[in-house]
Amino acid sequence: MPLTKSVDVPPAVRDAIARLQMEYVHAIDALELERWPQLFTEKCLYQIIPRADHEQGRLIGIWFCDNRGMLEDRVSSMREVNVFEPHVYRHVIGPTEILGQKDGAWSAQTSYIVVRTMLEGEMTLFSAGRYVDEIVIEGGAARFSKRVVVPDSWRFDTLVVIPI
Amino acid sequence: MPLTKSVDVPPAVRDAIARLQMEYVHAIDALELERWPQLFTEKCLYQIIPRADHEQGRLIGIWFCDNRGMLEDRVSSMREVNVFEPHVYRHVIGPTEILGQKDGAWSAQTSYIVVRTMLEGEMTLFSAGRYVDEIVIEGGAARFSKRVVVPDSWRFDTLVVIPI
Amino acid sequence: MPLTKSVDVPPAVRDAIARLQMEYVHAIDALELERWPQLFTEKCLYQIIPRADHEQGRLIGIWFCDNRGMLEDRVSSMREVNVFEPHVYRHVIGPTEILGQKDGAWSAQTSYIVVRTMLEGEMTLFSAGRYVDEIVIEGGAARFSKRVVVPDSWRFDTLVVIPI
Repeated sequence: MPLTKSVDVPPAVRDAIARLQMEYVHAIDALELERWPQLFTEKCLYQIIPRADHEQGRLIGIWFCDNRGMLEDRVSSMREVNVFEPHVYRHVIGPTEILGQKDGAWSAQTSYIVVRTMLEGEMTLFSAGRYVDEIVIEGGAARFSKRVVVPDSWRFDTLVVIPI
Repeated sequence: MPLTKSVDVPPAVRDAIARLQMEYVHAIDALELERWPQLFTEKCLYQIIPRADHEQGRLIGIWFCDNRGMLEDRVSSMREVNVFEPHVYRHVIGPTEILGQKDGAWSAQTSYIVVRTMLEGEMTLFSAGRYVDEIVIEGGAARFSKRVVVPDSWRFDTLVVIPI
Repeated sequence: MPLTKSVDVPPAVRDAIARLQMEYVHAIDALELERWPQLFTEKCLYQIIPRADHEQGRLIGIWFCDNRGMLEDRVSSMREVNVFEPHVYRHVIGPTEILGQKDGAWSAQTSYIVVRTMLEGEMTLFSAGRYVDEIVIEGGAARFSKRVVVPDSWRFDTLVVIPI
């Protein structure tokens, strides 16, 4: 089995992708959720698909949004209804592996661990997994045309209210 | 809501800040605590303020040191009194977001997760949160003029003996 | 105590080492274990030595392999016997500190946290610690001539079946 070939990525693209990854987790962890849809292209795909399903090609998951408007709707409902017990996330992400470019989009993957903290202070290891992304560069900035969140575990002890 | 503007940071500054972040966690995790105060400027601020307090502007926290001598005193007491049950930390940090420059100092934030391991081998998810920093470059090296540790949780099951 | 001196590392070497660190964790986490031995030189050392033992210079640990063939044998037995309860890892690693160069090899250390997820979905904080590496550059690619995994805890609730 050959090693993955090192992909030739322009430094500006690499920097823009690194920045996108960082902005994504900082927006969510700071609960600045209105910034979250802006990190996607207008036509986009956001899904959460547990690892076992993803490996079997069962691409139906917990969340499914296929345009930025749906992401914005999600945020609006969170803000308006606000029925969930208040909690915050903390993501720590590893380095992003850029796998190649196809039809103007860069394929990439990034590992993550998310700790969830409830208002009462209780911390839980909430999710660990991998982001599988397609990323385009628009006007010098990177945006997700596709982000599939692939948690290693298929179990969540509660609803996933805030995007991972 | 506009996206955060990408800040223009000289590569040498970016490298020095990345190195500072790394040296900080490696010094603490290796229990080479005498190296820890040296990562701050002579006049400095080190605080641990739980997230809820930080967001409400209640800037009183668990630790408060406003010069390097106080940091050194902290380390000395740890070394001399040594009453605490031996334990070590392991930090994993995410990428640092550099937010801007003001009065010669760079503002930055970095997410962290800390795992604590007791001498007996028991591991705990000890803290998850964010470093909110002001960093100056002195003679080519970066130093904290201010580091506020903002844990997502306000609860610690024991005293915070070792700096986070 | 002086601060660690910043080591002058050619950017291409730094990039190759960062890529090696990333490929290592992605190969293991994706269970593409056949890729794992290929990240080592033919003559190499792979060990897992708990922190307390490592600090005391007791260099006998849980795993010991001193050439790539032994690593390949390990992978073969995992694949053939397959008696262990299926599980996967998720590593998140921090930045790599490159400490110096000696006899053609770069010394480096990197912190890690590993979350283990069982087939049934149960997640555990499995290990936290540090990689202590010697890395050589061969034909533009970085390879481990030595990787010592130093978990902060000496306790594992089960056998370590998959390399950390």
